[in-house]
Amino acid sequence: MEGQKLLINGKRLKETLEKFAEFGKTENNGVTRLSLSEEDRLARHYLRNCCEKLGLTVTYDDLGNMYATLEGTEGGPPIVMGSHLDSVKRGGRFDGVLGVAAGLEVVRTLVENDIKPRYPITIVNFTNEEGARFEPSMMASGILSGKFDKEIMFEKKDVNGTTFGEALKAIGYDGDEKERLKEGRAFLELHIEQGPILEQESISVGIVGCVVGMVCYEWTIKGEADHAGTTPMAMRKDALFTANDIITAIREQLGNLDAELVYTMGRMTVHPNIHTVIPDSVIFSLEARHKDPAVMAKVEDIIRNVGKSFDQQDCQVGIKKLWGRDTVMFDEQLCGTLEKAAQTLGISSKQMVSGAGHDAQFIASYIPTAMVFVPSENGKSHTEVERTSWEECENGVNVLLEAVMELQSI
Amino acid sequence: MEGQKLLINGKRLKETLEKFAEFGKTENNGVTRLSLSEEDRLARHYLRNCCEKLGLTVTYDDLGNMYATLEGTEGGPPIVMGSHLDSVKRGGRFDGVLGVAAGLEVVRTLVENDIKPRYPITIVNFTNEEGARFEPSMMASGILSGKFDKEIMFEKKDVNGTTFGEALKAIGYDGDEKERLKEGRAFLELHIEQGPILEQESISVGIVGCVVGMVCYEWTIKGEADHAGTTPMAMRKDALFTANDIITAIREQLGNLDAELVYTMGRMTVHPNIHTVIPDSVIFSLEARHKDPAVMAKVEDIIRNVGKSFDQQDCQVGIKKLWGRDTVMFDEQLCGTLEKAAQTLGISSKQMVSGAGHDAQFIASYIPTAMVFVPSENGKSHTEVERTSWEECENGVNVLLEAVMELQSI
Repeated sequence: MEGQKLLINGKRLKETLEKFAEFGKTENNGVTRLSLSEEDRLARHYLRNCCEKLGLTVTYDDLGNMYATLEGTEGGPPIVMGSHLDSVKRGGRFDGVLGVAAGLEVVRTLVENDIKPRYPITIVNFTNEEGARFEPSMMASGILSGKFDKEIMFEKKDVNGTTFGEALKAIGYDGDEKERLKEGRAFLELHIEQGPILEQESISVGIVGCVVGMVCYEWTIKGEADHAGTTPMAMRKDALFTANDIITAIREQLGNLDAELVYTMGRMTVHPNIHTVIPDSVIFSLEARHKDPAVMAKVEDIIRNVGKSFDQQDCQVGIKKLWGRDTVMFDEQLCGTLEKAAQTLGISSKQMVSGAGHDAQFIASYIPTAMVFVPSENGKSHTEVERTSWEECENGVNVLLEAVMELQSI
Repeated sequence: MEGQKLLINGKRLKETLEKFAEFGKTENNGVTRLSLSEEDRLARHYLRNCCEKLGLTVTYDDLGNMYATLEGTEGGPPIVMGSHLDSVKRGGRFDGVLGVAAGLEVVRTLVENDIKPRYPITIVNFTNEEGARFEPSMMASGILSGKFDKEIMFEKKDVNGTTFGEALKAIGYDGDEKERLKEGRAFLELHIEQGPILEQESISVGIVGCVVGMVCYEWTIKGEADHAGTTPMAMRKDALFTANDIITAIREQLGNLDAELVYTMGRMTVHPNIHTVIPDSVIFSLEARHKDPAVMAKVEDIIRNVGKSFDQQDCQVGIKKLWGRDTVMFDEQLCGTLEKAAQTLGISSKQMVSGAGHDAQFIASYIPTAMVFVPSENGKSHTEVERTSWEECENGVNVLLEAVMELQSI
């Protein structure tokens, strides 16, 4: 590999992505490819065919995770690349599948250039990353890393009552536990950013230092449902007014903490939700994310305290922590390798964090892991209009290839 | 009628109310007696039987309104008393039916005391006051007063697709248009307050001067649905945050207007209502009520202007007036008669307004009208726990009787 740098075939990458987009294609050029659906089976079948044609060994484990391996001259733990083929309902053509197609394209480039890697290279497709059909998300990587219990996960049901275990068997991907990903020299996941930062700053790739920690709380405000026309303001116990005041207080306090903190009240339910009745109950969610545990601790302090001054005034205020996760740091050395790869290729890059969850955050617990982001147009994902330009897809995969070449030489 | 005042029979009134409460009785001692249902038919049948036993002439018009008339020695337009027998789903045992039972008890008292009235006295049961099965509420009195169009109303459907016209025919109460209430010397409606004021002030009856004017608006805030974890705060178009700010501004401005103004955001819908997605749309209702048109004009000014400073900042803000009604003033002289009746009987009373709508507000357009309120325990109505003590029911009906006696002598 003297002189000219090895580069992937952008046209072939585009064709591969377009081919994958056929499996579950929606009217509006999006994708509905729920985990373990017929569309998922067809996409898996296509991936397997592509890999077998390249001479790779394709296996799948008891969770349906697929592995396609190009043997290395030295053997040992593989360098792993990949992501997931499943999508949300009416999702886009890039989320997940880009990381799998990227791995395929990297291996294709090596094979067509007759490059025999020193260490094995494995392309992986993780089952049920989205959790759109069977909750929770990142289910299979969660089991792999010991975060979730297989028995419990296999009983998770979709809306029709089909269990994960039944669906896995039905599409013929219930393989052997011994095939599970147990070790690796590195795991690299290329993914769309799903946010607006790279596009806004006109940068091609993001080197992801961590998946930020988050908490999710639920607030319950209980008031009294009275007649909107006959109850004087001073005698009301209006749950919506109290919720409004609490949200204002939360926003004021969280807004002063740190510019990188994000917080969202995404869900709110008002009861009885009739225009002539004073609301007797408002339930709303609050989730917040930040990479620094010290900031997250302050967030939780605020959450625990802000409701106290409102409780028992007009209404009763309750909070419940639904769940939380700590920040997952990626491998610093691997991030450095990715950054250097971008520099070598003259592709603009920046260090950033991931606000969204990814399989990589679980795999990071036992394999050195890092992620590469490519720009999302208007920051959109999980929607049919999700888009990343072919050029930026190509840039991202070239960074991956360059990093893999570097890792082969270490 | 020299010496001792004529009084109603409180025990008989209680028994009548308890009998009516059987028609549609719920598990929790409430009532579900939707308009033109089998339960409504049974209650109507019972009313008719009671009236016929008293020797009254019972008729019903093309809207199903029932009239039971005790002839007067002089004839001419009747003194009318009544309300409605229908209820909301899982409603209470007093709303509406109390006004009908009151009319019946007044006439029973006259008949048993062998009092031949000078002017006819008519007990009325208005069809579909609640609008709980067929919208809008106060349907039949609305048609009587020319506010609603009969053809349109008869096509209104319940949740099963049955039209009002079909349901009316099915229970056998589709009478003749010539029977409609066309004139009256007075219309008096006794009703539960449906608010907390009388109870709070320990007053037995309210003399209702008006049904207050109201407006109902709908606000639509349009933002953008982005990923809650990946979108920096400064790049968000969070419809819920904007709604939160607008509601705060509305409350501040309306809160300074007038102590008697009431305003409610009873209905709020957040979209897509997922905790990990920034809301792209919030729709909420705002209704406000006050007796003074000048205050209501200021309310509408505030509503029209408050959104402007938020529009086009992060989100688009739209408002739509859903409906409104002007304050309906009741007959001053008639209110005076009621007040004097309470004084004569030594029953505590206060002048007040009605925040809720009643058939009386429509009848007031062509017959001198007034209303009497009795206390609602904890201000509750439209619920199974709705309650007014038997003693207060009796007080209210005695005021009605005393007023009718007075009107007979004018």
